[in-house]
Amino acid sequence: MPEIDFWYEFASTYSYLAAMRAEPMARAAGVGLRWRPFLLGPIFAAQGWNNSPFNIYPAKGRYMWRDMERLCAERGLAFRRPDPFPQNTLLAARLAWAVPDDRRADFSRSVYLAEFAEGRDISDARLLASLLSELGLPADALLARAKSDEVKTRLRAETEAAQAAGVFGAPAFVTADGELFWGDDRLEQALGWARGKD
Amino acid sequence: MPEIDFWYEFASTYSYLAAMRAEPMARAAGVGLRWRPFLLGPIFAAQGWNNSPFNIYPAKGRYMWRDMERLCAERGLAFRRPDPFPQNTLLAARLAWAVPDDRRADFSRSVYLAEFAEGRDISDARLLASLLSELGLPADALLARAKSDEVKTRLRAETEAAQAAGVFGAPAFVTADGELFWGDDRLEQALGWARGKD
Repeated sequence: MPEIDFWYEFASTYSYLAAMRAEPMARAAGVGLRWRPFLLGPIFAAQGWNNSPFNIYPAKGRYMWRDMERLCAERGLAFRRPDPFPQNTLLAARLAWAVPDDRRADFSRSVYLAEFAEGRDISDARLLASLLSELGLPADALLARAKSDEVKTRLRAETEAAQAAGVFGAPAFVTADGELFWGDDRLEQALGWARGKD
Repeated sequence: MPEIDFWYEFASTYSYLAAMRAEPMARAAGVGLRWRPFLLGPIFAAQGWNNSPFNIYPAKGRYMWRDMERLCAERGLAFRRPDPFPQNTLLAARLAWAVPDDRRADFSRSVYLAEFAEGRDISDARLLASLLSELGLPADALLARAKSDEVKTRLRAETEAAQAAGVFGAPAFVTADGELFWGDDRLEQALGWARGKD
């Protein structure tokens, strides 16, 4: 079965869209999905941005919020703008690498729903602990593990791997032969490429 | 029949994609298309950019060129990167407003093909004159008209109207009720919105 890397950042609105549909679509296409959360901050910083481009460029930001409203309405997804935007996602991303590999997708969707369907603050360790508990995961142990050198190093390495793969925004999809597709609206194309090249 | 504004800039690679498919798709959807060429330069300058973001941000630029190659191959369109990129599009845009309204689409497609299918320099007045002649249009008269105050003022007014509609990149589609859709890959959504609201 061909596989693609699904690169996502918890602060990214369009990553929320992709996270909510990627798994059923990949399954239907017969393509495996590797969930790879990373941090956009260092990649944006390398481009000279110290904030979200949606805040730096107001016309682009206004468009994105309206676009998200329309797309979420079309897909039957709740949408609420979190405050502040972007959220600090360091702890959530470390936790996503601390949970067992086969629970990463569940945990990630749960974080996105809290943030963008409910507008909650996902930098809050208590909120993240409650999301873990609802998934039947050991919150205290995982919060401790999220602070380990192993997990910190892993998240840094993933962010470097994203950058090395050419990722400059999120979500992004990378096929086994190194083709990069950027944006939730390119998920279909990425799956088609992965199938065609198998 | 509902109508949408099709905002495009001759230097824009994704506008080439949209220009080559917008008319048959709009016709099939029963939606009218108003072809509105404008200049991105003043809009980018207002965002602090004095060059294409694809040149300012190299990772984004590398992605765009590869993405264009893939999409053009998929759609059976020739693609050749013009040098320099972006092209100076002032004269082409003025000419697009100088030609009769019912020839603007033909002329615009012809400019895009010269630029992105053949990699030619569309700032060259002789090239533009030959494109006009091939379309059976009076090249000398139109080149003179392109330098008139009327046409210069029109292009400036169009660029201001694009900006006022929230346009921050090209191509963009704006429906009668003011909804903005950005990017060739949103053409379907824009047409659907225009139909739904009719």
